[in-house]
Amino acid sequence: MAKYMVTFMPVNRSTMVEEGTTVAEAARQADVFIKNLCGGEGVCGQCRVQITSGNAKPDEQAKAFFSEEELDRGYVLACQTEVYDNLEVLIPPETRMEAAKIITTEGEEGEAEAGAVPLVRKIYLEMPAPTLEDNISDIERVTRELRKKIGWHSYNIGLPCLRRLSEKLRQSDFKVTASVAKHSGGYRILRIDPGDTSANAYGLAVDVGTTTVVAQLVEMGSGRILGVSGTPNNQASFGEDVISRIIHACKKDGLEPVHKAVIKNVNELIETLTSEKSIDREDIIAITAAGNTTMSHLLLGLIPCSIRLDPYVPTADIYPQIYAREIGIQINPEGILETLPSVASYVGGDIVAGVLACGIPDKPEVQGLIDIGTNGEIAIGNNEWLVCCSASAGPAFEGGGTRCGMRATKGAIEKIEISEGKLKYQTIGNAKPRGLCGSGLIDCIYELVKNGIIAPDGKFNRDLKDDRFAIVDDIPEYTIAFAEETESGEPIVITETDIDNLMKSKGAVFAAIKSLMDYIGMGFDQIHRFYVAGGFGNFLNIEKSIAIGLLPDIPKEDIEFIGNSSLTGARLCLLSEKALEKSFNISRAMTNIELSNYQPFMDEFVAALFLPHTNRKLFPSVTY
Amino acid sequence: MAKYMVTFMPVNRSTMVEEGTTVAEAARQADVFIKNLCGGEGVCGQCRVQITSGNAKPDEQAKAFFSEEELDRGYVLACQTEVYDNLEVLIPPETRMEAAKIITTEGEEGEAEAGAVPLVRKIYLEMPAPTLEDNISDIERVTRELRKKIGWHSYNIGLPCLRRLSEKLRQSDFKVTASVAKHSGGYRILRIDPGDTSANAYGLAVDVGTTTVVAQLVEMGSGRILGVSGTPNNQASFGEDVISRIIHACKKDGLEPVHKAVIKNVNELIETLTSEKSIDREDIIAITAAGNTTMSHLLLGLIPCSIRLDPYVPTADIYPQIYAREIGIQINPEGILETLPSVASYVGGDIVAGVLACGIPDKPEVQGLIDIGTNGEIAIGNNEWLVCCSASAGPAFEGGGTRCGMRATKGAIEKIEISEGKLKYQTIGNAKPRGLCGSGLIDCIYELVKNGIIAPDGKFNRDLKDDRFAIVDDIPEYTIAFAEETESGEPIVITETDIDNLMKSKGAVFAAIKSLMDYIGMGFDQIHRFYVAGGFGNFLNIEKSIAIGLLPDIPKEDIEFIGNSSLTGARLCLLSEKALEKSFNISRAMTNIELSNYQPFMDEFVAALFLPHTNRKLFPSVTY
Repeated sequence: MAKYMVTFMPVNRSTMVEEGTTVAEAARQADVFIKNLCGGEGVCGQCRVQITSGNAKPDEQAKAFFSEEELDRGYVLACQTEVYDNLEVLIPPETRMEAAKIITTEGEEGEAEAGAVPLVRKIYLEMPAPTLEDNISDIERVTRELRKKIGWHSYNIGLPCLRRLSEKLRQSDFKVTASVAKHSGGYRILRIDPGDTSANAYGLAVDVGTTTVVAQLVEMGSGRILGVSGTPNNQASFGEDVISRIIHACKKDGLEPVHKAVIKNVNELIETLTSEKSIDREDIIAITAAGNTTMSHLLLGLIPCSIRLDPYVPTADIYPQIYAREIGIQINPEGILETLPSVASYVGGDIVAGVLACGIPDKPEVQGLIDIGTNGEIAIGNNEWLVCCSASAGPAFEGGGTRCGMRATKGAIEKIEISEGKLKYQTIGNAKPRGLCGSGLIDCIYELVKNGIIAPDGKFNRDLKDDRFAIVDDIPEYTIAFAEETESGEPIVITETDIDNLMKSKGAVFAAIKSLMDYIGMGFDQIHRFYVAGGFGNFLNIEKSIAIGLLPDIPKEDIEFIGNSSLTGARLCLLSEKALEKSFNISRAMTNIELSNYQPFMDEFVAALFLPHTNRKLFPSVTY
Repeated sequence: MAKYMVTFMPVNRSTMVEEGTTVAEAARQADVFIKNLCGGEGVCGQCRVQITSGNAKPDEQAKAFFSEEELDRGYVLACQTEVYDNLEVLIPPETRMEAAKIITTEGEEGEAEAGAVPLVRKIYLEMPAPTLEDNISDIERVTRELRKKIGWHSYNIGLPCLRRLSEKLRQSDFKVTASVAKHSGGYRILRIDPGDTSANAYGLAVDVGTTTVVAQLVEMGSGRILGVSGTPNNQASFGEDVISRIIHACKKDGLEPVHKAVIKNVNELIETLTSEKSIDREDIIAITAAGNTTMSHLLLGLIPCSIRLDPYVPTADIYPQIYAREIGIQINPEGILETLPSVASYVGGDIVAGVLACGIPDKPEVQGLIDIGTNGEIAIGNNEWLVCCSASAGPAFEGGGTRCGMRATKGAIEKIEISEGKLKYQTIGNAKPRGLCGSGLIDCIYELVKNGIIAPDGKFNRDLKDDRFAIVDDIPEYTIAFAEETESGEPIVITETDIDNLMKSKGAVFAAIKSLMDYIGMGFDQIHRFYVAGGFGNFLNIEKSIAIGLLPDIPKEDIEFIGNSSLTGARLCLLSEKALEKSFNISRAMTNIELSNYQPFMDEFVAALFLPHTNRKLFPSVTY
């Protein structure tokens, strides 16, 4: 089979690959980072690259991700483009972004991916066999070798591992692989395996969202993302929001089923990811999980009851490192789980992960993170201080709580435009529409208000003459996709109730941002950059988000949508001991402003229940 | 019921007790230490006290422990003497000795029992309930309070404990007892119990001997010994010595039964001790275990196979702190087990415990410890250096391997004298004789050789005319107690084979001492003091031990018999974190001289197979 040379720019790294290999795979072989959220399914559009030399064969469907001009300039999706020629591939900045973030979190050390120490390391040790002159104990022999490789630390070992040590050493002629993890000041020797198994070291980063659980499978050595998969949180059967789940968990014998539900999620995701990539789940040796405080409690099986009751006390903010098996997660029996620390009852490990991922504590400039999930969480700070707050936003932006809402997967409508009475939409993966994801809902509200279909108070113009408009059971609704267009054959609509929910969601988020800014006495113009995170899908239209009053009215180039920053932060911690340590520092350093009994927030919330806002002066750029 | 005042001197501490209370119990109530090896059975004779004022009613049987002169001066056994009058009780130095040792091990700090920090502490915490102004997480609230009480450390907590924390705090109005143990640099929070349970904190010190397993139940707060119990090591069914047990354990599926056997011992001892004292076994929160390296491996279920094979490598010398439940020991589910560290394959935690108990590393004077069990282990050193060695002695001195041998419990003959053709013996507890314990066997050999019944080569004079002498199946034997005198109705005899075994045992021990002294280039006269430990019973006749060539021929006042120093050391570690830390230092600092392939030892061993020795110049004081 023919082989071709693929050279990646600007890093100028080359690799020879067989014909038919995808550009994304070639990048992996060349150890070049390409952003890839969907794991190569061609649905996320994140792996945009530009073919600057040579002929590529881009996938037809993938063309939908690019403008005509971009197509002319050679833009393709790396995962959907096969190599049949020598190629030069330019990786544009947006596709390198996540790699840049990893470097950010490692501070001054520059080439962080090379220098970072993953949470669990598999270290191959070739030891001299004992002699009468050198007959130290087996465990001392192992730790002596470890000290040579990774320095002088205290090394702990659990009894199960110690029990079989003698056998493992002797069956492998004293050539073994030690799996070690940092643990309370020293290192913990998790496993000793005969021979060199250091290549088979995988980790899982999990974002435990109230609505959605997403996991990334990562190669621990290289940091490469091998796949990502998401699934609705099984706890939904106990209630959509954290409060109803806490209430259920606090009934007699209520905790266990809620706890088990999310463990089932994680195990299913592991099953999906490992079978997709033909990886043995026993080779997964570490998991990092980020979630809000309630999700973290329920993941670990901690009693969450006091979280929802004044004075809102969680069992823990910093969670112990545990063996994943202790909570029934099926990876390597000695594999560990680190749960990212929380700040308070309503500011969880997901926001800590996000702050870490954005590198907020690394820079003197004041930056902010707005994480919009079922809760809206805001963190603002720099390398000297961090404040945060949280407000319940409801599940609307994650696709819950609206009639036709869905998460941002294939078939979700993520873009809508109404122009001259015509409605156009775009779905993820260009599939037949199945529902509306967060970004689609934002577009939808914007287009409805801009076109006068709804008023700034979110109510439909009931006299509207439009075949998309109807009043069913007294509730006005608007059809986005007609029955004949959709996958299910059912129409996709947005109702006035949906809009009401979305207004409350966006109002709560904006009120939280505004309250926090007022609290610290800063204006929006003093914020260097706002990062927006959340499960909106792969795109978030910043201008339309501003225009409906979800995001503050600052120059749109100062707002950056960064996707699932909770997942990114969890992955950073998986790949770097220092990042995890930094997450503990963020948790300890962050000041939480409790909004639940904070009157200015209540006032801001009411004021924000309008499009874009009751105080239009806050949104000078909005023109409708 | 009448009450009387008992005042203990020289500490001058008084207590009021009900009539009929024993003096030993009164001492406990007054928090005064009285040596008590047998746990109040009146068989060890260790709790000697002098009634200096008032009338006491001593037990008649107990009088056997004292000379006429002592009885006249008011000497009684504290555990066998009831109070029916106001008493002043003088505790003589020998009865205070063990307490003095505890102080020794604590180094410079003087009143160690007051200052020592036990391995597991139960700390009662009264915390303020959370408010909106103080809504830190539950675990932070607990650690904040712990930091106030026991200082700034890192505190770890296991998931099971964390899971119920919220409930425990709230059901007790934030008044709880935390059980904490030092663990890898910080502290581990083992349990949180509602209310104040700090009074119910017990520990178990265990000497895991090859022949005998002995356990002491200790009150953690006061250090009081509540009871002691011993039982033959159940592993005996797999062989008498460590080698045969290793061989069994290294057969297919062989380890588990050998491991389980000794766990059964420990659980039985716990059952005996807790039911005797009506203590809930769940209130035992810590165990320390000292044993030789093989016993420690088998206790923990570690593969012991390489211990017996050149180059004699154990799995571990320093063992991890584990939950006792991990090896099936039935105490508090969060109770921990610390196994005292070994030095090498044939120098175990028992000798480390002994060195600790004797305070050898605390003083500039060179001192030695000779621990005579199934292995003879010798350690010599001071506050700057420590060397040790080990030789297989066989089970003879522990009552194994001889026809009528038994361990030093009630009915064991512990003293023998033959004078003018008449044999007199004394048994432990003055009971009908049941066999010969170690000290009885030493006396026996001495008397036999001194009276010309056996020759210095250990062979019987076959022409002997003595109704105690007989040759049965070609093997000469000598009757110590006739059938009509004994409990079983069977005679108690010593055979030539027994003597041969004892000669080898004493020869191995002396050869080991001599080899080690030669190795370090010191003469016996340079040793400040020799401590002799072992399961000989409560007495060891030092002169006779020298005269048979077991102990070196130095002034007998320079040799001190200290009983089970392995158990004492284990108890010290139970009652003091620092003592345990010191045991790790001893393990690391001690240089082991491997005798197994050391020619001078072989030569010394052969030379020592004679009574007292082939080189009589080494034993100038011996006159027979």
